[in-house]
Amino acid sequence: MTTTLPTIGSTTWVVPDGYIPAHSTGPAPEMTSHDSVCILNAGASDALVELYLFFTDRDPLGPYRMHVAAGRAYHQRINDLRDPAVVPVGVDYSLVLHSDVPIVVQHTRLDSRQAANALMSTIAYPAR
Amino acid sequence: MTTTLPTIGSTTWVVPDGYIPAHSTGPAPEMTSHDSVCILNAGASDALVELYLFFTDRDPLGPYRMHVAAGRAYHQRINDLRDPAVVPVGVDYSLVLHSDVPIVVQHTRLDSRQAANALMSTIAYPAR
Amino acid sequence: MTTTLPTIGSTTWVVPDGYIPAHSTGPAPEMTSHDSVCILNAGASDALVELYLFFTDRDPLGPYRMHVAAGRAYHQRINDLRDPAVVPVGVDYSLVLHSDVPIVVQHTRLDSRQAANALMSTIAYPAR
Amino acid sequence: MTTTLPTIGSTTWVVPDGYIPAHSTGPAPEMTSHDSVCILNAGASDALVELYLFFTDRDPLGPYRMHVAAGRAYHQRINDLRDPAVVPVGVDYSLVLHSDVPIVVQHTRLDSRQAANALMSTIAYPAR
Repeated sequence: MTTTLPTIGSTTWVVPDGYIPAHSTGPAPEMTSHDSVCILNAGASDALVELYLFFTDRDPLGPYRMHVAAGRAYHQRINDLRDPAVVPVGVDYSLVLHSDVPIVVQHTRLDSRQAANALMSTIAYPAR
Repeated sequence: MTTTLPTIGSTTWVVPDGYIPAHSTGPAPEMTSHDSVCILNAGASDALVELYLFFTDRDPLGPYRMHVAAGRAYHQRINDLRDPAVVPVGVDYSLVLHSDVPIVVQHTRLDSRQAANALMSTIAYPAR
Repeated sequence: MTTTLPTIGSTTWVVPDGYIPAHSTGPAPEMTSHDSVCILNAGASDALVELYLFFTDRDPLGPYRMHVAAGRAYHQRINDLRDPAVVPVGVDYSLVLHSDVPIVVQHTRLDSRQAANALMSTIAYPAR
Repeated sequence: MTTTLPTIGSTTWVVPDGYIPAHSTGPAPEMTSHDSVCILNAGASDALVELYLFFTDRDPLGPYRMHVAAGRAYHQRINDLRDPAVVPVGVDYSLVLHSDVPIVVQHTRLDSRQAANALMSTIAYPAR
């Protein structure tokens, strides 16, 4: 398939409800409770995405840098971020993503604290 | 990190589906059934947010006032609101939030009435 | 409280994923599997809302008429609609709502086919 | 009912979070874990919809072609797509849909890997 799709999306995306449940039921890593950002770069240029985390009672954390190649999907568990710092579990936060080319972002949480997992998901808010 | 992010979001947000399940399974407060509004104020000015609740068969309730500092996330369980009145459980309602500076709002429900909790979430509707 | 909130929302809303699960676990009606449309009429004029259902292999059904008073929330289970016809369970459909004044619409499903209920929800798509 | 509804929606829709859980609990096909795209063509002209799948580490797949008749709903499980190729389970992907007439698209996942199913859903992102 020739990728002739036009560039689509926005360059700033917001997810107010970030939270990594502190417990899990079931085999890791598949069923580990997690927050994920799912990114599509449908365009012809690679994307540099910078993620910032905002908290209730301390300064924002970031940028976390992610490279999403042209014509590629990229699903990133927030639990797995390491640089500049691990994200604490059981703590409220919000996410802001900036990209140098248009992308589309969705946020999904898997919560397996109890015996059968719950899911929630929403397209993020495209700020500009 | 220097907070150089521009102000992002809208000043009026709507969530039509408010409902606090009346029962819970699991340890309180973590697994208590609840509705939450999750707010990000990514800008450089503090936000005064006024929340109004609309009901099926009586006049709206509010404002509930929340202060969200510049560059901070703020997750508020509707169950925990006290002034001007506690919000009844097991009752249908809708939420409208007004802010004096742009914010972004997401609504999330945790329902633990049965043995394993359910989640639902959506970015609120940005009305203006 | 004096309701001085401006009129907010749109007049046409779409929900592509309608489906009423055919089975339920737990006490009726609270835990009965259902689709709901949750409507907020935050304005000063009463709303007449006309709901149409679209199906895979037959003509649309409607209008279902709902009156939402000024300054009121209105949560309607699709299962409970009777006029012009009961909505079949276990069947794919889509929903379109038209209102004579601006409203905001959210769609939520409770699925209790298995032992612990699942939830999903999204702000509907504001078409105009 | 005479279908006098105007054409509504957009012609390009994006869902960044695609993922078909690899296991299921409960009777097939009803409770089989799946991703679905739910499409409404409320207009008077039939729609030709072309679906493309984007992956983390290989070229996009598509188009998958779907015909949605005028005034019809169409719910398609991604699991059931066969041409040009079956979609792998347990693999991250993103979805882009193009239509020759305006449609509205919602994405829903049913995850029954554990004993009680989870659901998540969101209106897709309307790119143009």
